[in-house]
Amino acid sequence: MARYAPVNFADVNIHGKFWHERLETVLTRTIPSQYDKLGENGILESIKLPDPPPPLRLKRHPNGFTVQVFWDSDVGKWVEAASYALSHRRDAEIEQKIDAIVEDLARAQAPDGYLNCWYLGREPENRWTNLRDNHEMYNAGHLLEGAIAYFQATGRRRFLDIMERYLDHMAEKFGTGPGQERGYGGHEEIELALMKLYYLTGDKKRLDFCAYLINERGNPEPHYYDVERERREAKNGGEDTQRYVFGDYEYSQSHKPVREQDKVVGHAVRAMYLYTAMADLAAETNDAALKRACEVLWADVMDTKMYVTAGLGPSAHNEGFTHDYDLPNQTAYAETCASVALIFWAQRMLHLDLDGKYADILELAMFNGALVGLSRDGEHYFYANPLESDGTPTRWDWHFCPCCTMNVSRLVASVGNYFMSASDTGIAFHLYGGVETEQTLAGVKVKINEASDYPWSGDIKINVDPETLATFEVKLRIPGWCKDAKVAVNGEAQDVGAATNGYLTINRQWTAGDEISLDLPMPPEKLYANPHVIMDAGRVALKRGPLVYCLEQTDNPGGWVQRFRLPRTSELKTETRADLFDGVVTLKADAIAIKEDEFTDLYRTKPPVDEPASITAIPYYLWANREQGSMVVWIPEA
Amino acid sequence: MARYAPVNFADVNIHGKFWHERLETVLTRTIPSQYDKLGENGILESIKLPDPPPPLRLKRHPNGFTVQVFWDSDVGKWVEAASYALSHRRDAEIEQKIDAIVEDLARAQAPDGYLNCWYLGREPENRWTNLRDNHEMYNAGHLLEGAIAYFQATGRRRFLDIMERYLDHMAEKFGTGPGQERGYGGHEEIELALMKLYYLTGDKKRLDFCAYLINERGNPEPHYYDVERERREAKNGGEDTQRYVFGDYEYSQSHKPVREQDKVVGHAVRAMYLYTAMADLAAETNDAALKRACEVLWADVMDTKMYVTAGLGPSAHNEGFTHDYDLPNQTAYAETCASVALIFWAQRMLHLDLDGKYADILELAMFNGALVGLSRDGEHYFYANPLESDGTPTRWDWHFCPCCTMNVSRLVASVGNYFMSASDTGIAFHLYGGVETEQTLAGVKVKINEASDYPWSGDIKINVDPETLATFEVKLRIPGWCKDAKVAVNGEAQDVGAATNGYLTINRQWTAGDEISLDLPMPPEKLYANPHVIMDAGRVALKRGPLVYCLEQTDNPGGWVQRFRLPRTSELKTETRADLFDGVVTLKADAIAIKEDEFTDLYRTKPPVDEPASITAIPYYLWANREQGSMVVWIPEA
Repeated sequence: MARYAPVNFADVNIHGKFWHERLETVLTRTIPSQYDKLGENGILESIKLPDPPPPLRLKRHPNGFTVQVFWDSDVGKWVEAASYALSHRRDAEIEQKIDAIVEDLARAQAPDGYLNCWYLGREPENRWTNLRDNHEMYNAGHLLEGAIAYFQATGRRRFLDIMERYLDHMAEKFGTGPGQERGYGGHEEIELALMKLYYLTGDKKRLDFCAYLINERGNPEPHYYDVERERREAKNGGEDTQRYVFGDYEYSQSHKPVREQDKVVGHAVRAMYLYTAMADLAAETNDAALKRACEVLWADVMDTKMYVTAGLGPSAHNEGFTHDYDLPNQTAYAETCASVALIFWAQRMLHLDLDGKYADILELAMFNGALVGLSRDGEHYFYANPLESDGTPTRWDWHFCPCCTMNVSRLVASVGNYFMSASDTGIAFHLYGGVETEQTLAGVKVKINEASDYPWSGDIKINVDPETLATFEVKLRIPGWCKDAKVAVNGEAQDVGAATNGYLTINRQWTAGDEISLDLPMPPEKLYANPHVIMDAGRVALKRGPLVYCLEQTDNPGGWVQRFRLPRTSELKTETRADLFDGVVTLKADAIAIKEDEFTDLYRTKPPVDEPASITAIPYYLWANREQGSMVVWIPEA
Repeated sequence: MARYAPVNFADVNIHGKFWHERLETVLTRTIPSQYDKLGENGILESIKLPDPPPPLRLKRHPNGFTVQVFWDSDVGKWVEAASYALSHRRDAEIEQKIDAIVEDLARAQAPDGYLNCWYLGREPENRWTNLRDNHEMYNAGHLLEGAIAYFQATGRRRFLDIMERYLDHMAEKFGTGPGQERGYGGHEEIELALMKLYYLTGDKKRLDFCAYLINERGNPEPHYYDVERERREAKNGGEDTQRYVFGDYEYSQSHKPVREQDKVVGHAVRAMYLYTAMADLAAETNDAALKRACEVLWADVMDTKMYVTAGLGPSAHNEGFTHDYDLPNQTAYAETCASVALIFWAQRMLHLDLDGKYADILELAMFNGALVGLSRDGEHYFYANPLESDGTPTRWDWHFCPCCTMNVSRLVASVGNYFMSASDTGIAFHLYGGVETEQTLAGVKVKINEASDYPWSGDIKINVDPETLATFEVKLRIPGWCKDAKVAVNGEAQDVGAATNGYLTINRQWTAGDEISLDLPMPPEKLYANPHVIMDAGRVALKRGPLVYCLEQTDNPGGWVQRFRLPRTSELKTETRADLFDGVVTLKADAIAIKEDEFTDLYRTKPPVDEPASITAIPYYLWANREQGSMVVWIPEA
C-alpha cells in the first residue's frame, strides 16, 4: 500500500458550516486579538534586543522561574498561527508585523547563531546551563514552526534562515561526538519541529539531530540533568538555586530511554509532543522499536488515562498524568494544549498505520478537548478543562502563560490538515464537514468535494471529479462510534462490512460526476466509564457522533445541574436548535431532580425531595459561552 | 449563670474503653516514637546552638523556604504532648529528655531574649524581617505551649522563664507604641498560647500582647507585610527573593481587621488558631464585636465549608479554604491539624456560650476529622484526610512537615480537657465515654463518675457523690444528632424537652449514691448534603451517634468500593464486631453493586451489569489501618 500523507490545509477549502465558522472566527478575531495581547503583555517587546524592557514584575512560578523564559515560544506560535491565516488569504498588515518580528530576532541572534531572547537579554552567561527547566530548545522549536509556516505562506526565507543558523549552532553543541554535550530539552517540542523542517527541506541533518534528541532522552549514564545540575552547584558553591519542583525525571519523560517507556507519565503536553516526534521519526526511519513504544504508550493512554472528552492530564500539580484511572472531573486539568498535542500525535500514528482508532481519537480531541479551549467569540480561552463545574471557572481573555491560546488558534487555522490524506494511488477521508480539494491521483487531476452538515448530521456526499477517467482508491473512515454506516457509490450500496481498520476502501474507475453517499447514523448514546474510574461510578455521559455533551445551568435553570439524575431507562432525544449558537443539536431526556426546598443546613438526615424534570444537554465544547453557571458531563444515573 | 471553665485533663481519670485505648496508645507508643523521629530527622539537633549541624538537603518548598524554619514548633509540640503524658504519670526518662531540650534552648537564647533557632543558627542578621512567612511567632507560640504544659506537669519553671524572656523581647519590639514595629505573625498560634499563659499566671501584659496581635492583624494602613517586604526589597536592591506564593493576605487572615472578617478564608489551621484566640480574648475582655465576629465566622464554616467528618480546608494548594460548598472528597485536604484546631475553637466558643451546637462540632471533629489522623498502632499518620480513595494514599510514619503528628498526640494526651466544664454552681458534661473526676461544687467536694461504652453505646450512667448533701446543677449535653434522649435521676424520668441550647440542666440537692441515667439512642442514620455541595449530589453518608462511617475495601472485597449504590429504601443495621479493632460497631445494608464483568475499555456504551450486594461500613476514623484499598464516605444512592 502506498504511504498516505496528510493533505495540506492550504490545499483544502473548508466550506462546511461548522468549521467555516470556527476558522473565520480564528482568522478574523482570534489571531489579530492575540497579537494585541502579545503587545499589551510585553511579549513583543521582550525580543527587542540588545535593550529589552526592564523585567516585568510578573508573578513568578513557585520554583523561581518566570514565564518570561517561554516568551519566545509565544512569539513563534503567533507567527505560526498568523502564517496559517496568510495561507488562507494574504494580508500585508500581518506580513508587516511578522517581518518586524523576524527583524527583531535577526538583531537578537548572537554571532554564533544562538537565539534565545531571555538569555541574550538578561543572563547571556547562563545560556545552555539549565536545559531541564528553561526551555531554550522548546522556544526554538516553536520559533522554527513559525518560520516554516511563514515560509510556506509567503515563500520568504529570512526567518527560516535565522532558525537554520540556530539549529546549526545547537547541533554543533549537542550530540554524541567528541566535545559535544549530551543535552536535550526539558520540554519537548523542537523534535517535532525538526521533523517538519526535514519534511520541508529534506535536509537529513535535521532528521539526525531529531534522532539524537530522541535517542539521548533519558539516557541514565550519566543523566544529563544531573550533570548540568552538578555544574550549576559547583559554580554556585552550594545547593542548586534552580529548584526542580517535580522531583523525578518522569515529569519530562526523561526517566528512561524512550524505547523502554511503556507508561505515559509526567507533564501531558511534553509527553504528547515527544510521542508526536517519536511517531514521525519511527515512520521516517522504519524504526520498529520506536513504533512499538508509540503503540504501547498509545494503548496506555487510551486504556487508562484519557477523559471521555479526550482531555489529558488530570493533575494541576504537574500539569500532567498521575496513576491509572485517576480522572477527577471537577479538578480535571486537561490542558487545552494537551488535547491539541494529542491531535498531532494521533495524526502521526494514523500515518504510521492507517487505522481508524487513531482517527477516532483525533476527531474526539478536535471536537471536544481542544475546541472547548476557545470561546465562541474567539477571544476567550480555557487553559484547564474540567468536566464538571460549580460555576466558578470562567474563560480568560488571556493567560499568565498563554501557551493554550495560540495552540488552539494554530490548530483551527490549519484544521484542513486533518481531513484527508493522499497517496499516489488514492485519497483517504478521516474527518468530514464540508471540504474541497484538488489532488493528483493515479496521475490524474481530481476535484473532490465533500459536503455535509457534520458533526450535526452524518449525511455526507462526496463528489469525485477526475479530469479524465481514472482508477484510484477512495478510503472512507467509518467512525468507531458509528454502528450502522451505509455507503453507496452513485446510488449503489457498498459492503461496509468489508471495511478494515475503520476504513472502507472503494477502488474503482472514477468518472466526472461520481458521487459517494455516506450515511453515518448518530443516535445519541450513553457512555459508561470503566468502574475503575471511581469518579464516574454510577454516572453516565452523553454523546452523539463525535460530540460529548454536558448539562449547563443556563439551559437547565433552577439551580445547580448536579441536582439531576438520569434514569437508565430514560431515552435521549435530539432537538435541532436553530436559535442556539447559530444552530446546534441538543439532547433532551426525562430526568429526576432534587427539588429546591427548605434545605438550609449543610448536612441533614431528611432525604432530598425528588421531582420529575426534563434536561437539555449541549455539546461540551460550547459550555461557558453564556451566563456563568454549573456544568456536568458525567450525570448520576437513577 | 456562673461562668463554666473546662475541667483540666489532669483532674480527669479516663477509664472508658474507647478513650483509654487511644490515650494509652498515645502515651506508650506515639509520644516516645515521635521523640525518636525528631532525633532521626535532625530536628532535635537543630536547636543545639551555636553550632547546629549543617543544613540538611531537605526538599525545599517551591517558594524557597525550608520546613526547617518551623522546627522549633515541632520541638515545642513534642514537649507539650510529652508533658501531658507526664501529667498522667511522671517519667524520669521523659523529663530528662525535656530538660535537655530546655537547656539547649537556654543556651540558644540571645542575650536580648530572642529565641528562634533557625535564625540564630543560620541568619541572625535577618531575624524579624519576614513575619509573613517565616514563623518566628508561630514557633514561639508552640514553645510557649510546651513550656506551660511542662510547668503544669512538673512545677519546673525554667522553660517558662525562657519563654517569658522571649515574650518580653517580643512585646518590646512589637506594638503600637513609639518606636515599635506593628508586626504580627503570618501563622497565628502565639495568640492562643498567650491566652493560656495569661490563664496560668494572670499576668495582664500577656493578655495585652495577645490583644495587640489580634487587633493589629489586617490593619491596612499600611499593611505590615507590605512594609516588611519593601524593606527587604530596599535591602536587596530588587524584587523580593522571598516569594509570597499565595498572592493575597487572605491566606493568613490578614486581609482585613479581624472584626470585619465574615468569611472563613485562607490556610485552615492558621484560621482556626486565630479564631480560637479571638474567642478567648472576646471572653476575657467582654468584647462583643470580637465575639460577634467569631459567631459569624463559625456560621460561615458550619453552613458552607465543613466536611461531614469535620474536616476543614478542601484545597492542598493553600492548605485551606476555597469557596462556599467546595468540598471535593477524593482530593479533600482536610488537614488533621485543622480538625484538631477546630476542636480548640469549638471549646472556646462553648465557653463563650454553653451551647450544644459547639459541643456537637467539638465531638464530631474529635471522633472523625482529628482521630482519623492517627493510626491504630499509634505510629502512623494522615496529614490530609480524603473522604474517598482509590487506595492510593497510605499512612505515613512521619511527615516532611510533621505538624499533624504532634497535634494529634497532644490532643489525645489531653483529651480529658474536653469532657466536662465546671463552675462554682455545677458541672456540665459535653462528651461521654467513661470519665471520673472530683470537683468542688457549691463548696462541697463531689466525686463524679460517668460510665459508658460511648461512642458505641448511648447507655450512660453518671454517679454523683457529694461528700455532704449539696445543691448544684448538673448539665447534660443532649447531642444534636440524638432524636429521642431519655434522662432519669435515680430512676425518675426528667423532662428532656426542657433542655435549652442542647443542655439539660438538673438542679437539685444531691446526695451520695445519686445516679443519673442517660439514654442516647443512636440508630444509624443517612446524611444528605446540601445540594450545593455538588460532589455529594445523589450520595448519602452513614453516621451513627458521633461517628461517621465509610466503606473500606477490606470489608467489602471484590473490587473498588465505589461500585456500590445504596438504595434509599435500604435499611441500615448495626453489628457489634468484637473481632474488629478490639470491638467496634459496624453498619450493614443491602446494596447494589456493579458486577465484575468483561469491562476492559475505558468507556463503553453497554451499561454495567448490577448485582445485589451487602455492604459493611466501619467508622471513618479507623480506615487505612489494614490492607491498602479503596474507601468512600459518600455512597451513591440508588
